[in-house]
Amino acid sequence: MASPSGYHGFVQLNYLPKKTDLICEFKIEPASGLSIRDCAERIAGESSVGTWTEVSTTNARIKAMGARVFEIKGNCIRVAYPFELFERGNMPQIFSSIAGNIFNMKDVKNLRLESIRWPKEMMDSFHGPQFGIAGIRKLMNVHTRPFCGTIVKPKLGLDWKEHAKVAYDAWVGGLDFVKDDENLTSQPFNNFYERIEYTLKMRDKAEIETGEKKMYFANVTAEANEMVKRARFVKECGGEYVMVDVLTAGFSGLQTLRNETEDLKLAIHAHRAMHGAITRNPKHGIAMLALAETMRMIGVDQLHIGTAVGKMLERKPEVMEIREEIENSLIKNKKHVLAQDWNGVKPILAVCSGGLHAGMVQKLASFMGKDIVVQAGGGVHGLAGGTRAGARALRDAVEAVGKNIPMQTYAKTHKELDLALKTWGLLR
Amino acid sequence: MASPSGYHGFVQLNYLPKKTDLICEFKIEPASGLSIRDCAERIAGESSVGTWTEVSTTNARIKAMGARVFEIKGNCIRVAYPFELFERGNMPQIFSSIAGNIFNMKDVKNLRLESIRWPKEMMDSFHGPQFGIAGIRKLMNVHTRPFCGTIVKPKLGLDWKEHAKVAYDAWVGGLDFVKDDENLTSQPFNNFYERIEYTLKMRDKAEIETGEKKMYFANVTAEANEMVKRARFVKECGGEYVMVDVLTAGFSGLQTLRNETEDLKLAIHAHRAMHGAITRNPKHGIAMLALAETMRMIGVDQLHIGTAVGKMLERKPEVMEIREEIENSLIKNKKHVLAQDWNGVKPILAVCSGGLHAGMVQKLASFMGKDIVVQAGGGVHGLAGGTRAGARALRDAVEAVGKNIPMQTYAKTHKELDLALKTWGLLR
Repeated sequence: MASPSGYHGFVQLNYLPKKTDLICEFKIEPASGLSIRDCAERIAGESSVGTWTEVSTTNARIKAMGARVFEIKGNCIRVAYPFELFERGNMPQIFSSIAGNIFNMKDVKNLRLESIRWPKEMMDSFHGPQFGIAGIRKLMNVHTRPFCGTIVKPKLGLDWKEHAKVAYDAWVGGLDFVKDDENLTSQPFNNFYERIEYTLKMRDKAEIETGEKKMYFANVTAEANEMVKRARFVKECGGEYVMVDVLTAGFSGLQTLRNETEDLKLAIHAHRAMHGAITRNPKHGIAMLALAETMRMIGVDQLHIGTAVGKMLERKPEVMEIREEIENSLIKNKKHVLAQDWNGVKPILAVCSGGLHAGMVQKLASFMGKDIVVQAGGGVHGLAGGTRAGARALRDAVEAVGKNIPMQTYAKTHKELDLALKTWGLLR
Repeated sequence: MASPSGYHGFVQLNYLPKKTDLICEFKIEPASGLSIRDCAERIAGESSVGTWTEVSTTNARIKAMGARVFEIKGNCIRVAYPFELFERGNMPQIFSSIAGNIFNMKDVKNLRLESIRWPKEMMDSFHGPQFGIAGIRKLMNVHTRPFCGTIVKPKLGLDWKEHAKVAYDAWVGGLDFVKDDENLTSQPFNNFYERIEYTLKMRDKAEIETGEKKMYFANVTAEANEMVKRARFVKECGGEYVMVDVLTAGFSGLQTLRNETEDLKLAIHAHRAMHGAITRNPKHGIAMLALAETMRMIGVDQLHIGTAVGKMLERKPEVMEIREEIENSLIKNKKHVLAQDWNGVKPILAVCSGGLHAGMVQKLASFMGKDIVVQAGGGVHGLAGGTRAGARALRDAVEAVGKNIPMQTYAKTHKELDLALKTWGLLR
C-alpha cells in the first residue's frame, strides 16, 4: 500500500535545453544503494516541483514544469530548469530552488553545485555591474598594469584617526586602493561615520600630493537599511566605492545595496568572508565559480577570488576558471563549467588577496593577467620601513608587470621592492 | 630575513573568559605538519586582530584586544573574543569575524564552528523573538499538543486560486498552519500579492467554519525592501505571520525584516534552505546548532531544525541539542555545546519538516517533546482522499500525542489516521 515516489520523470536524456532554461551542473555522490540516475531524479524533483511522494494536488501542467536532467556524465549531471520556476530579480528565491533543500537530502551523500548557466531573460532582471573592469579603469585612469591595493591592518583595533593615517600612507606610498578589513564596520573603537569622513579627507590629500586617483573601499556591511544609510554617507563624503561582505550580508541585503548604488553611482567591492564554509569541500556545497557568477549577475564591480599563491587555500585551475567566468564575455563549455554568453553584462575585476606580497606579483600575473587587483595587507604593512615602504614595493611590483620587466631587474633600481623581495623572497 | 608570523600570543590557556566575551567552540583539523596549538593560534589571530605577518601598524593596545584560545581538548578549541571586537546588532559583522576568512586558510584542513556563547550585551542589541513559543501558543490557543502544519504542494506550479484551495482544505481538514514552499515567492504562475490576498480570505473562511485559529505563513523572501513591502501587504490583508528563507536571504535582509515585523506585530517562520551546503559536513563548516542560536538572537519565532526521521539527513542527538538550544532558557555545557544563559530571550519553536507523515509523529514527539510544529507536505497531500484526509490524519496524530494515547489505539476510531498508518506505516 506504499505510496509511489514523487521523484520520477525528471531524467530526460533526450531533452534539448531551451535558451530560456536556467542550467546547473551538479557533482553528485548518491547515498548507498542508489544509482546516479535515481539520485538525479530526486535532485531535479526536489529542486523543482517534486517531493518524496506523489501528491493529490499536482497535475499534468505542473509536471511539465519540472526540471529535466538532460546529461549524466560519470558523477556529473546537468539539469535544465524552466525559466517560469523562478522569480525574476530574486536571487534568494533562485538559490532556495537550485541550492536549497537538496543539500540535505538523505538520498545524496555529497552534492556540489558547480556552475550555473543564466538565461538572458534572467540577466535582464538583475542590475549587473555598474562600472565593471572598463569603468574602473576609466575611473582610475590606470590602463596597462594590474591595480594595487591594501587592507588597513591590523584588522581591528585602530581608531579612526590611526586608520586614516595608515590609509594615507598606503596611498602616498603608491597604492590605488585602500580597503577596510572584512570585520571592521562600526565598532566603539572606530565609528563608521567618523572613519569614513576622515579617511576620505586623507584620500583627498593623497590625491593632491600624488596627482593620482585614489579609492577608499568603505565597508558598509550591516543590516540592509543601515547599509544603505552608510552608502549614502560615503557618497556625501565624496566616496566613490563601497565594500560589502557579500555572503555574511546575504543576497537579499546585497541586492538592496546594489539598487541603491545605481543612483549614487558608487562602485561595489565584494569581499567573500565565510565562503570557505560553503566552497571548500570539493565534493559538497557550492563552488566558488557558481557564487562568483551570481555576484556578477547581482552586480558587484570586483570580487575576491583568491590568489592560489598566498595564505588561503585555492587550487590554481579553479582560480583561473573563476577569473575567466567573471572577466570574459563568452565562456566555453568544459568539465564543471557551463557555457555562458554574458550578453553584455559587464565583466568584473578579479581581486587577489590573502597573504600576498610583492614577490608574488609576477607569478600571479603570469596566470591571471593584468586585469586584477593585487591586494596585500601584511605584505604592505609588514615591510621594514612601514606602510609607505610596503606600498611603494607593491606599486613597483605592479609597475614591473605593466612594463613587462622581470621583477629582479626592476628591483635593482627600486629599493623598496628590493627590500620586499629580500624579506619574503620571489615566487617563481 | 623572513618576517615573524603575526599569529602568536593568541593561545592563553590560563585565561578565564569574561562575562562579556563572545565564545566559540571550533573543531579543527590542522594542515599537515601543524600542531593543534599552532593552528589554534592562527584561527584566533585571523578571526580577531592578526594576520600572517607581524605588521608595523599594530601596538600593545590592539594586541590586548585579540581573541584568546583558553581551552584545547583533543581537536576542539574554545576561543574567547572581547566584546569590543564586534558591532552591536550587526550579525553580518559578527560572522565575518568568527566564521569568515578562517574557513579558507591553508593552515587548517578542516574547521567547524560548533557553538557560540553570546554575552548578554550582544543579546540586548538584537530584537530577539517577538512571540516565541508562549506567544504562539497564546495566539493559537493551542496549549497541550504539538502544532501541525503543511506546505502547499506541489512546491511550484499551482496558480493562486488552486494554492488557496489547497490551503483551505488543509485548514478545514484540521491543520493549524499552512506555509508556502521555500521557493514559491512571486512567479508568473502565482503572483505573491494575488496569492496572499486570496489565501488569507480562505483562511478567514476556514476559521469561521472550524471555530479554530488558523495561520498562513506567507513566503516574503526577496530583496530586502521588497521583503518589507510584502510583509506590510501581509499585514494589510490580515495576516499574522511571514515566512522567510533565512539563509538564502541572508543575515542583512533578515535583520531588516525582523525590524519591520516589530511594529507590524507579525511572527516569523524561518525556513533554512541551503543550510545543508554549510552544515552537513561534520568536519567543516558551521553546525546547525550555531546557526539556530543565531536565528534566535536575530529573532525568528520558529525555525526548521529537522526531524531525524524523514527525507532529510540529520543525526538525532544533533536535532535534540538544537531543540534544547532554541527552546530552553539555560543551556548546559557539554561537548560541542557551550553553556548559555539566554537572559530572557524568548524560546523559539522547533519546526520538524521534511518527509514526515502521521506515522512518525509519536516517535518524533517521544524525543522532541510537544513544543514542536509537525509539518508534512507529501505526508498530507499524498494520502488517498487528498489534502483534507491527509490533514485530518496529521491532526489526529498530534491529538493522540497531546492526549498520550498510543497511535494505533487512536487510529481505531480515526479513519484518516488509520489510512495514513496503513499507507506509510508506524515508526516505532
